[in-house]
Amino acid sequence: MVETPNIARRPLPAAGATLPPVLAFDVFGTVVDWHGGICNAVQAMNLDVDADAFALAWRAGYQPAMQKVRSGERGWTSIDDLHRSILEQLLVQFGVRHLSEGEKDHLNKSWHQLDPWPDVVQGLNRLKARTIICTLSNGNIGLLTRMAKHGGLPWDCILSAEVFKAYKPDPAIYLGVAKVFDLPPGAVMLVAAHQEDLVAARACGLQTAYVERPAEFGANRAKDVHPDPANTLHARDFLDLADQLLA
Amino acid sequence: MVETPNIARRPLPAAGATLPPVLAFDVFGTVVDWHGGICNAVQAMNLDVDADAFALAWRAGYQPAMQKVRSGERGWTSIDDLHRSILEQLLVQFGVRHLSEGEKDHLNKSWHQLDPWPDVVQGLNRLKARTIICTLSNGNIGLLTRMAKHGGLPWDCILSAEVFKAYKPDPAIYLGVAKVFDLPPGAVMLVAAHQEDLVAARACGLQTAYVERPAEFGANRAKDVHPDPANTLHARDFLDLADQLLA
Repeated sequence: MVETPNIARRPLPAAGATLPPVLAFDVFGTVVDWHGGICNAVQAMNLDVDADAFALAWRAGYQPAMQKVRSGERGWTSIDDLHRSILEQLLVQFGVRHLSEGEKDHLNKSWHQLDPWPDVVQGLNRLKARTIICTLSNGNIGLLTRMAKHGGLPWDCILSAEVFKAYKPDPAIYLGVAKVFDLPPGAVMLVAAHQEDLVAARACGLQTAYVERPAEFGANRAKDVHPDPANTLHARDFLDLADQLLA
Repeated sequence: MVETPNIARRPLPAAGATLPPVLAFDVFGTVVDWHGGICNAVQAMNLDVDADAFALAWRAGYQPAMQKVRSGERGWTSIDDLHRSILEQLLVQFGVRHLSEGEKDHLNKSWHQLDPWPDVVQGLNRLKARTIICTLSNGNIGLLTRMAKHGGLPWDCILSAEVFKAYKPDPAIYLGVAKVFDLPPGAVMLVAAHQEDLVAARACGLQTAYVERPAEFGANRAKDVHPDPANTLHARDFLDLADQLLA
């Protein structure tokens, strides 16, 4: 085997990483570039704010907003509605006072129009030819469906927190995908660019694949993409994932 | 306009039947040929029964089984599990005593492998290029996903009774699809080969399209496919549906 720099910087595929019956994909950051997409949307609306800081703050509001639902402080709420609540706070915080309701709606829907990373569509199509590929995201079904049409994402099925009425990392969502397909948890592999998502999935018995997305928070902001040997496999991107699983 | 016999036997498209933002499709009978598929599966297993009668009886057990769930007599149950319960009764009724558990599972999964009617894939692909196409079926998500892979059905999204924890004709399922896409009910059109499904959808404010499937119960058994003027449109098949909606 010829060692190229690219191959040398990741570990070899784990022995026994065979194609599972179901591959479930985290979406924001793993499949689509939320940072770049939100920056572009903010700039396109001439908001006169630091688009990078605005995008990071919007995303950072996501976990605390979900936590209010998880804790029961707020009833079941779609990610569209959570994004909109966070947006209202951000507009105050960033001093943006001139947006109409229609413009706020439009900006909120930029989460439906995020572009996939360049390797995604080809990688998914290769995997889809051999196994079931589905989303497993906290995003709501309508958002994920419109995003798939926008980006040409060939999902076999859209699974979401909305189906299970539980946000990740609630075990109900990881175990739910196995139950939907009438399979043991170990027959499902979660693919994600976030180790904490994979840790939670592994605790439920799922296989896990980490995908590096070094530019998730912007090209100029470093992200730790070191391998964790606890994962079933570690891939640079979806083409590498397909190479390893279809070998 | 040249009148051909085929065009003459259906009413002209209703004025104003424009493409809605979401087309939701009933599946069994409307998209796939359950009668032909189950007959083939029964014959392939050499069950020594009248395959036509067996297929009809299996399908006829479906509504009473769902009714037990609707009434609360039985807790939430997937269609896979209802099909299996009905199968157990049918095997006794038809005097089939030699099947192993594995063979029963295999036969039950023939509902995952039903072939689409010949016009379906082309019609769906034409519609998918212009609007959202999803299932709206009592079938469970796993069944519908595997059926889509088997038949090459290009759904944008699999919606099912399993998502809404309500079987058709419960209003929760028709209103649920509109809510998933954050649209008013009138922005969704249900496509089905069963007038009672369309009546229930219409009562919730959905648009409705009837599709003729004259061979649903077998080529030798007549099915009433007369138009009901209450529907938004009436189509011979999915190619005709696409012609009318994309005109």
